[in-house]
Amino acid sequence: MNRPLIIKDITLVTPDEQGGASVLRNSCISVSDGKILYVGTSPDEAVQSLCLVAESNNESDDSQPPNIAGRIPEYDVYIGTDRILLPTFANGHSHIPMSILKNTADDMTLEDWLFKVILPRESRLIESDVYYASLLGIAEMISGGTGASADMYFMGEQTARAALESGFRLNLSHDGKINEDGKWRTDPHSLRDFRKSFHSLDDGLLRVSLMVHSIYLYPDYLYPQLAEEALASDVSIHVHLSETRTEVDNCIARYGKTPAEALYDFGIFNVPCIAAHGVHLADNDRAILAENHVTVAHNPSSNLKLASGICNVKALLERGVNVCIGTDGSASNNSLDMYSEMRLASLIAKGVFGNPEDMNAEDTLYMATRAGFCGLGFEHCGVIAPGMCADFQIVRCDNPSVWPVGNPISSLVYGTPSSAVESVMINGCFVKYKGELTTIDFEKVKAETLLSANRIIAG
Amino acid sequence: MNRPLIIKDITLVTPDEQGGASVLRNSCISVSDGKILYVGTSPDEAVQSLCLVAESNNESDDSQPPNIAGRIPEYDVYIGTDRILLPTFANGHSHIPMSILKNTADDMTLEDWLFKVILPRESRLIESDVYYASLLGIAEMISGGTGASADMYFMGEQTARAALESGFRLNLSHDGKINEDGKWRTDPHSLRDFRKSFHSLDDGLLRVSLMVHSIYLYPDYLYPQLAEEALASDVSIHVHLSETRTEVDNCIARYGKTPAEALYDFGIFNVPCIAAHGVHLADNDRAILAENHVTVAHNPSSNLKLASGICNVKALLERGVNVCIGTDGSASNNSLDMYSEMRLASLIAKGVFGNPEDMNAEDTLYMATRAGFCGLGFEHCGVIAPGMCADFQIVRCDNPSVWPVGNPISSLVYGTPSSAVESVMINGCFVKYKGELTTIDFEKVKAETLLSANRIIAG
Repeated sequence: MNRPLIIKDITLVTPDEQGGASVLRNSCISVSDGKILYVGTSPDEAVQSLCLVAESNNESDDSQPPNIAGRIPEYDVYIGTDRILLPTFANGHSHIPMSILKNTADDMTLEDWLFKVILPRESRLIESDVYYASLLGIAEMISGGTGASADMYFMGEQTARAALESGFRLNLSHDGKINEDGKWRTDPHSLRDFRKSFHSLDDGLLRVSLMVHSIYLYPDYLYPQLAEEALASDVSIHVHLSETRTEVDNCIARYGKTPAEALYDFGIFNVPCIAAHGVHLADNDRAILAENHVTVAHNPSSNLKLASGICNVKALLERGVNVCIGTDGSASNNSLDMYSEMRLASLIAKGVFGNPEDMNAEDTLYMATRAGFCGLGFEHCGVIAPGMCADFQIVRCDNPSVWPVGNPISSLVYGTPSSAVESVMINGCFVKYKGELTTIDFEKVKAETLLSANRIIAG
Repeated sequence: MNRPLIIKDITLVTPDEQGGASVLRNSCISVSDGKILYVGTSPDEAVQSLCLVAESNNESDDSQPPNIAGRIPEYDVYIGTDRILLPTFANGHSHIPMSILKNTADDMTLEDWLFKVILPRESRLIESDVYYASLLGIAEMISGGTGASADMYFMGEQTARAALESGFRLNLSHDGKINEDGKWRTDPHSLRDFRKSFHSLDDGLLRVSLMVHSIYLYPDYLYPQLAEEALASDVSIHVHLSETRTEVDNCIARYGKTPAEALYDFGIFNVPCIAAHGVHLADNDRAILAENHVTVAHNPSSNLKLASGICNVKALLERGVNVCIGTDGSASNNSLDMYSEMRLASLIAKGVFGNPEDMNAEDTLYMATRAGFCGLGFEHCGVIAPGMCADFQIVRCDNPSVWPVGNPISSLVYGTPSSAVESVMINGCFVKYKGELTTIDFEKVKAETLLSANRIIAG
């Protein structure tokens, strides 16, 4: 945990709870014990907020003399001139360890991509590959202002370890299934033991969910068991939903229902759920998602690049569905850059559906921040307000891409490159500080991931 | 002009003349007198290439003793480990001075954007605004690896001055029209005098073309005059073409022809021409563009953001049209980032037209480089080969977004952020060197553009 902190003279951008976003210029923020204490325009009140916390901490500690109201604890100051402070991003859908496979399987159909290239390579992955690949992906996300991700991959304990060591928030979907004598079943111990094993490292950073890959990967009998297990273990579910036309057509042929209808009938939506993609949805599907408070993670780059189609975000929002933004894995994106993803999400919503007023900058920023944190189960993040977790990023505007800023929200969504992110705080700790990653030894990660990638790709 | 230079141990990526691109690892390049001398893998041969040039220079200079073959002239060395060298980008369509209006007119229809916001603000622009705004846009382009742009705006002499002072290549479309007593006519002196006035600063960096804004802005009688004037002055033309459905419908109502047909009949395509957008084209339009060697500048961000539609690039390429990539102005993009534009061009081609194998990374890189330089009339740029102009960029790969590189061409198109550009050489001079702009005083530009933007927006 860093020392108490006051950030001064900064332009604050924050989503609100209603799906919008607002700007406060010349603002001042105080942070202590991992929480935001003060948000406003008075440096004096910001300092006073630190005194009040110090006082209340001392009251509960009998070994210390009582603090005199107004005595100022030691604190750091961050000058925010020509900078914007906003929440970190929450990446709603990723396969983080695929970051070592980026730029190696492009311009191909989904079938060729998956069966000819990705699956054979993944069969060669060992645990240390996944660990360093996770650190690589987390380094990229932190560098670009992302402070949390929902992830779905195998050897999840390696990704969890990488995230916790990096001070990064993770909603990790654990496999939780075993195959005995050719028959699948859920493994409740695996899910609960997994959660327990990270207890000592965790500081509210890790949420475990159950991986239900999709409607097409498992035998019918397994889905109700997965739904029951998630409910019994009190975890959320992460699932791929209606990513391709083929998936929908095959599901209708198999079940006489769309994927959303089939998953609903199996009970998968009885717990909080992140459904990735939602490209091919019928209106009744959207109604089911809204009624069951399912969060849809929209992955525009990956959906375009694999020519899966384009999610109709506006139709989801009009139904009241919580929609967040995801990058998908680096092997189909080819990066984990939420700035790039925000811009694309807004541009294709306007350009493909034909209305330039749709999916404005406020809508998009909300999706990339607050909507994502709610979907991932980190309810105290994604808004800059007193009492919320100290999760935010600071962006420099004094570069040719961003200058002059104009409307800060437009600037963030349409014009800011992820390289403008100067500092990132997660849960009260700076994980990037004035340009440098503070929790990840990137030189080590570079060396290890190059060895892994060369071995895996060579075969 | 910099000293002779050898770049070693670098990954070279270059388009070829056939629309593809290739990779040469562990390569070595020599540069002298603004030209690329050697491209290969032998450092010894690279050094030898410099000796041969020094020798031939000395032969023509009687005051120097003849050089002994093999004597090595002084030269600089650039170590390219973990870096990619590729041509600079040529931005096929822009309104550079609009960079001070970025992030101030978003999420609105084209009509509201143009008539309610942009035109009133532009009426307040004075020459110094345009000069510093041009420097701002050029600073952004150079920072992100762009070495040339086609530009269309007013007070063009300010943009030309900014470009030449920055060492930046510019195809500037000059207005070349005057209105006397309510009647328009071309002004041949204006066009030729304009060209002459920059003679002393120019080093092959400036090409002047004639601005023909579009089929909808001028009276009928002016188009044939413009076509004649361009032909007589031996300049190319820069025109907006079929950007919106409304433009096409109105043109058909007025002339009984599409914009491409009307412009062709007026003689506009009798000189080399850059036609920006090409969103709403019929098959006969594409045939006209191909037969007349018109270059189409594809502007995916702007077309999506204003919901103008999506250019069918594949259909143009299949017809044999030279297609390059443009950013349009920052007020509708909101940046001048060719990396972002390349990525988007490829992704929407795949996602909207439904084939992930279309517009692969090689196609897209060719469009952003060689196709653009050919369209702009800088025929000796856009390919890394002996005898070509020394116009290239060097990109760092040792960052989390790009590492590990995988296929360098895929990496450049899908995964490289413009911030990875470390150095940029134009015409033999480093205009960005190891992270620093060398020809633009960005602090001065920042201060001046902020004053301009505040005055113009306040109204």
